[in-house]
Amino acid sequence: MTAATRGPVLVVGAGLIGASVGLRLRAEGVDVRLEDPSRTAVALARDVGAGRPASPDDDEPALVVVAAPPDVTASVVRRQLEAYPHAVVTDVASVKGHVLAELREHGAPLDRYVGSHPMAGRERSGPSAAVPDLFLGRPWVIAQSEESSPDAVLAVRALAVDLGAVPVTMDADAHDAAVAAVSHVPQVVSSLVAARLVDVDESALGLAGQGLRDVTRIAASDPELWTSILAANSAAVRPVLESLRTDLDAVIAALAHADDATGPETVGAGVLVTIARAIAAGNEGVARIPGKHGGAQRAYEEVTVLVPDSPGELARLLTEVGETGVNLEDLRLEHAAGRQVGMAVISVLPGSATKLEWELAERGWRLVV
Amino acid sequence: MTAATRGPVLVVGAGLIGASVGLRLRAEGVDVRLEDPSRTAVALARDVGAGRPASPDDDEPALVVVAAPPDVTASVVRRQLEAYPHAVVTDVASVKGHVLAELREHGAPLDRYVGSHPMAGRERSGPSAAVPDLFLGRPWVIAQSEESSPDAVLAVRALAVDLGAVPVTMDADAHDAAVAAVSHVPQVVSSLVAARLVDVDESALGLAGQGLRDVTRIAASDPELWTSILAANSAAVRPVLESLRTDLDAVIAALAHADDATGPETVGAGVLVTIARAIAAGNEGVARIPGKHGGAQRAYEEVTVLVPDSPGELARLLTEVGETGVNLEDLRLEHAAGRQVGMAVISVLPGSATKLEWELAERGWRLVV
Repeated sequence: MTAATRGPVLVVGAGLIGASVGLRLRAEGVDVRLEDPSRTAVALARDVGAGRPASPDDDEPALVVVAAPPDVTASVVRRQLEAYPHAVVTDVASVKGHVLAELREHGAPLDRYVGSHPMAGRERSGPSAAVPDLFLGRPWVIAQSEESSPDAVLAVRALAVDLGAVPVTMDADAHDAAVAAVSHVPQVVSSLVAARLVDVDESALGLAGQGLRDVTRIAASDPELWTSILAANSAAVRPVLESLRTDLDAVIAALAHADDATGPETVGAGVLVTIARAIAAGNEGVARIPGKHGGAQRAYEEVTVLVPDSPGELARLLTEVGETGVNLEDLRLEHAAGRQVGMAVISVLPGSATKLEWELAERGWRLVV
Repeated sequence: MTAATRGPVLVVGAGLIGASVGLRLRAEGVDVRLEDPSRTAVALARDVGAGRPASPDDDEPALVVVAAPPDVTASVVRRQLEAYPHAVVTDVASVKGHVLAELREHGAPLDRYVGSHPMAGRERSGPSAAVPDLFLGRPWVIAQSEESSPDAVLAVRALAVDLGAVPVTMDADAHDAAVAAVSHVPQVVSSLVAARLVDVDESALGLAGQGLRDVTRIAASDPELWTSILAANSAAVRPVLESLRTDLDAVIAALAHADDATGPETVGAGVLVTIARAIAAGNEGVARIPGKHGGAQRAYEEVTVLVPDSPGELARLLTEVGETGVNLEDLRLEHAAGRQVGMAVISVLPGSATKLEWELAERGWRLVV
């Protein structure tokens, strides 16, 4: 047994997250019990190896992991703290402030509670989508409060490490502000951009490029789940959306003035500066997003290669990239409309692009250089 | 000589687009002349094989391609129509209505003018970034007006086809409305979301996931270029941004009510419905974006595989995917923070995911299934 986590562990909520927690802990030899309002979910989670159904005869667990929907998390946590007077309880809800506030309001024993939030997920849900590596290399926020006992904090950190995640300590408010900016606001705005496409002509959609696809990819997310997340984090999401609206208003006003004039040549400089500043602020913001492996973002060089859309061509390309000795830092596929051809955009470290282009051209690849 | 384009062709503006047009036409045996206010640009374009510098002794060109910055396009087109009384003139500016309006206002001979817009570009610019395949498989909008003569329209269509592009006929206003929705508004909004990151804590940025990276990728775009595009298309961009603002206001108001209550359980249903509808409208919009090869978007299934970050591993994975006989429809790489491991998200046709998962698991790949 290599796990730092002391069992038994009770997982309440046998969905994707709960069952994945159980799967990995079971692999580490920890005793895991499963509870869920749905008997089917418990049976499925058991069948994939995430633990055994909890029984009324069980002794008290050492650790309870609440992986319930966000809107019921606080009341489930309260019930667990009451039911098991010695257990450490954590939850994995994606909003932390309102859970803590509700627990405080009800005088729950907060020394034994440490909220957490694993930054992991999948497009599929439910226990059948569970995998032991779901948390591998992902940040796991430990949202300890001033009431949390050191032992409780250690138990939740040990859980995160056992699951292969990277623990990140942050208080509940800082966490909620962070996810508002890096996750919740991008979700809202992606959805609003995609909603503009409901009424446009089909011919207009034929002009869609990679930019639109990227901006709207997460607009395919589940409305029910996101409604509960956004409502739970409204206090942190609202100010960010409001500051975005202020910028949006400025751009709209500037465009109205641009409109008054007959052409861009005659537009006052002040109008254009407002628009340019909005785009430039975006440059500055996007440059702050950390790059691969959590390091500082590096300015990669890109090499674009035309790839015939037949089986094996992309693999052959990557094999030959490997042979050149140039390390592939990232890869993006772009598709050309109406043609059986795509483009592979290969990111490499600065200084390596020219070498790679020459080597690939020599091997007969068509480059978009 | 296989080209349908009748030369000589004069390319005015030897940047990325102009030089790429010249490169491909030269490869088809067409006589191409280059003009640009910058002698360096002309010399560079000549050196990459995009044509020869125009000379005062040249006879009249049959076709003039204006690839100048958007804010000077209309006046350059006018000058070309005057200078060459028999030539067909086109331009490649990304906004079409204001060019046509300015030409009309000045009584230019519109029978010989057909605006166009190739939906192609690169992150690098200038003639040294030119490539003959820049337009391959990309939509090329032919924005003919009622004044355009059939011969002029044919000449511009022939140009698009010779360059490997897919001609799409659309009038100037329809084009401008289309690019407002699928390109200009996504650009503005991506920039506004990225701008929110300027002031957030570095620890918050450590929680950034693939969603934020996707939404903000195009926020790295050039402020000067985008300012001129947005100003030129303000009439079409503004109403789309305004309707987005209406939705945004509704979401902000709903979140304010969610805030008033103590927790999401006590929030009125009307408030939540507003948020859920905004997300659901995004679902509907994103589902309309055409998929690969310009066909209707298909709901692919995804298979996620853990890929050790050492040279050759991704190539080996794709080779083995090829051996299973399952066709890879798309590929996305996701990176795990702080770890030398990444995930390859492979899209396959519905019904193929399970087979692929089994085959890969058997070959020892770790799946996130």
